[in-house]
Amino acid sequence: MSKGVTPKSQNYSKWYTDVITKAELADYGPVKGTMIIRPYGFQIWENIKNIFDKEFKKTGHVNAYFPLFIPKSFLNKEADHVEGFAKECAIVTHSRLKSNKDGELIPDPESKLQEEVIVRPTSETIIWSMYKKWIKSHRDLPILINQWANVVRWEMRTRLFLRTSEFLWQEGHTAHSNKDEAVEETLKILNIYKNVIENDMGIPVITGKKSENEKFAGAEDTYTMEAMMGDKKALQAGTSHYLGQNFSKAFDVKFQDIDNTEKYVYATSWGVSTRLLGALIMVHGDDQGLRLPPNIAPIQVVIIPIYKSDNDLEQIIAYIKPVLNKLTENNTRFYFDDRDSISPGFKFNEWEMKGVPIRLEIGMRDVSAKNIVVARRDTLEKSTHPIKEVANHIMICLSKIQNNLYQQAENFRNNNTHHINNYNEFKKIAATGGFIQCGWDGSSKTEKLIKQETNATIRCIIQDVDNSDAKCIYSNSRAKYEVVFSKAY
Amino acid sequence: MSKGVTPKSQNYSKWYTDVITKAELADYGPVKGTMIIRPYGFQIWENIKNIFDKEFKKTGHVNAYFPLFIPKSFLNKEADHVEGFAKECAIVTHSRLKSNKDGELIPDPESKLQEEVIVRPTSETIIWSMYKKWIKSHRDLPILINQWANVVRWEMRTRLFLRTSEFLWQEGHTAHSNKDEAVEETLKILNIYKNVIENDMGIPVITGKKSENEKFAGAEDTYTMEAMMGDKKALQAGTSHYLGQNFSKAFDVKFQDIDNTEKYVYATSWGVSTRLLGALIMVHGDDQGLRLPPNIAPIQVVIIPIYKSDNDLEQIIAYIKPVLNKLTENNTRFYFDDRDSISPGFKFNEWEMKGVPIRLEIGMRDVSAKNIVVARRDTLEKSTHPIKEVANHIMICLSKIQNNLYQQAENFRNNNTHHINNYNEFKKIAATGGFIQCGWDGSSKTEKLIKQETNATIRCIIQDVDNSDAKCIYSNSRAKYEVVFSKAY
Repeated sequence: MSKGVTPKSQNYSKWYTDVITKAELADYGPVKGTMIIRPYGFQIWENIKNIFDKEFKKTGHVNAYFPLFIPKSFLNKEADHVEGFAKECAIVTHSRLKSNKDGELIPDPESKLQEEVIVRPTSETIIWSMYKKWIKSHRDLPILINQWANVVRWEMRTRLFLRTSEFLWQEGHTAHSNKDEAVEETLKILNIYKNVIENDMGIPVITGKKSENEKFAGAEDTYTMEAMMGDKKALQAGTSHYLGQNFSKAFDVKFQDIDNTEKYVYATSWGVSTRLLGALIMVHGDDQGLRLPPNIAPIQVVIIPIYKSDNDLEQIIAYIKPVLNKLTENNTRFYFDDRDSISPGFKFNEWEMKGVPIRLEIGMRDVSAKNIVVARRDTLEKSTHPIKEVANHIMICLSKIQNNLYQQAENFRNNNTHHINNYNEFKKIAATGGFIQCGWDGSSKTEKLIKQETNATIRCIIQDVDNSDAKCIYSNSRAKYEVVFSKAY
Repeated sequence: MSKGVTPKSQNYSKWYTDVITKAELADYGPVKGTMIIRPYGFQIWENIKNIFDKEFKKTGHVNAYFPLFIPKSFLNKEADHVEGFAKECAIVTHSRLKSNKDGELIPDPESKLQEEVIVRPTSETIIWSMYKKWIKSHRDLPILINQWANVVRWEMRTRLFLRTSEFLWQEGHTAHSNKDEAVEETLKILNIYKNVIENDMGIPVITGKKSENEKFAGAEDTYTMEAMMGDKKALQAGTSHYLGQNFSKAFDVKFQDIDNTEKYVYATSWGVSTRLLGALIMVHGDDQGLRLPPNIAPIQVVIIPIYKSDNDLEQIIAYIKPVLNKLTENNTRFYFDDRDSISPGFKFNEWEMKGVPIRLEIGMRDVSAKNIVVARRDTLEKSTHPIKEVANHIMICLSKIQNNLYQQAENFRNNNTHHINNYNEFKKIAATGGFIQCGWDGSSKTEKLIKQETNATIRCIIQDVDNSDAKCIYSNSRAKYEVVFSKAY
């Protein structure tokens, strides 16, 4: 903990892993591609999760739990879906281990399953197989179900939080009697996502549709949120899909409408995952480690007493008591760090690494002078305040830090977003990093060629282009869409 | 929903499944042995989970997340552990599906894993493989980690909530520098379990140690809570294990103690699962369906307006408004059921089936008379109250229902617990059901013979027997322990 991280500018990817390791957010699991989310990382995830969960419930959604295991045959029911997931899934083939003659454990051949089961990569298929059973009439609709769960997509090239075989997420799966309502749901969720990610995680996002190439395997339309990381690459922070009738047709889910006719149900699905922790680190982190927005920080204020004797410590505790009472009243999450065997300097570094928004330092001199030193993690500034004013100052300061982190991230993104109409310039920017906002003719071929030549992909479609002046960055023919290109995680 | 359930007395097992289906708590999944927890069942689980989670955090525990996949070889490291879990585990052998020449999806032989991975049946092994990395010094101890997760133990004979291939649970895994602290932790958790299950779920439990035969695969001592179901069988409601140094030795986890010597770490693990929902149904349910203790009921009060016209409904809404405001102030969870196409009688049945503790009925006559009808789910009694007093009455009544459900369950258990010392009587009771409290000589052979002859097992050891008068129910030699026998789920 005492040693710092590799500087961002020197090796971004190493910096990222260093922050995760040294802030004790996560660790590598023994099976390749797996990850442990350590308690401090998990507390951040719990805070994010609780905010989302409240928003989902406020808008009428309920949680449920569907099985981890999906019959192999289900994957085959939706053509794009199997294409998207068959190549990276965990397949369970046996249900018992036995010892062979060398005493080694092997799958017992007699326990071979009649039909292999897949560990869910996402739950559309299993959920729609149940909706088939539960939906008969328009009175059964809408169904607004969400699930918090683990999912598996086999990965060998692990990157903590960003690319792991197993990750945690929420997946919403809703069923509606008509298209308008389903589309409205898709956008309502996109809006909830955007609000929480911007207001609570302090991460500005661009929202819009995905291109045909980039959309979810089985969706009619995928809406996405794209955030810019500290190395100017894009990260897809969450998606909300309008699925049309693709899954209701695949699983034959019809309902009797008010007019007594039978119709296929309309669907949406949407998810955010522990990937968001990766975004959090890459958007706000610096060379001292993590910087956490107060709204989701497990500890918002850490208090570090600086003392030589037990008597000193007792005086400091008595001195700070009224402040801590005020913090408790205000529901501020604080931690009084009186660990004995560790020096104040070490503690400063440790809590900076862990991104705690505010640090209070109290020595005997502060006690005499009736002061407290307040250190902001976002700016690394220190200031001294009369103890009577410090609780108020903290409340104001937390709100300032929340805003400042967002503002810094937004400025960084805006400074690195380029509105251009020249492909040579495009190639230069794609090589050095940043968002490129430009016209696109809407052809899949153009998109693929650009990707081949620059590694940049369409992150999202900002809007349809009406005016006939706009040109495609690549083909120079009339632009159909205004889009954002970038290299991405 | 309109049709009732099979009477308990007629077919207990069918009654149980009927309640689950008709109250929409759960459903069968497409893969044999799997289960869907439907929104209403999941809300109950969330309420239980939140109470436990708060208690764990209050006592210094933190949540984390460990991988679903465990290397096959890990299972082999603790001898009893592999014995306990190898026979019922899901084994992942491939990581990719491909189409064969008939267009059928098959596991791609080229994706066969070098080492098969096991879907966790419990997480001791994977967690101790990480503790090996994280624990160096006494300063790293204790570690008090809990995880909310899904686990898999292959099952073909499904019984919803009680026996399914996958279930949800929490598993605590703690590491300590000495035995006393680890034993204290084991008992502290047992006590938390008992308090929540008795005070919030209204289920009385007997606590004590398991016999050697019945303890957890890898534990030194297993402490259990045993509850009596409505058919007089026992259900193990949760366990807390003192693991000694079994897992620290298996994974070579040593720490440097204050005295500079290296020592193996002491461990505990403990868990409760969605099985508790099965207990809830079987302890409190009746022939009208579920009966929920208010502390964990998703809806504590349902309000049913009885009206003929929109005008009636408007008047009822205006009339009940102040009561609903009071309920909101008191944090009472209520639902105003103004669904239009469903009759009041149907609604009464539906909410009785779902076990909502209190139902309010309001017709136009009540509006004129300034009254409200209050129906208690536990006693099925109805009473009429002046509207001004109804909010207060509800608060008192919820507390009465909470106590009454516990009291009924306790009376039932006490009436069906038999303190005996005669084996013929034992056999009679074992055949008809109930708890048998008696002496046991402590021999594993006796225990096995009793199980063979009566199907009753030792649910827990109540206490060590000091006085030399007590005799073993079977061998008639000196009793070493006072124990509770019963048939069990």
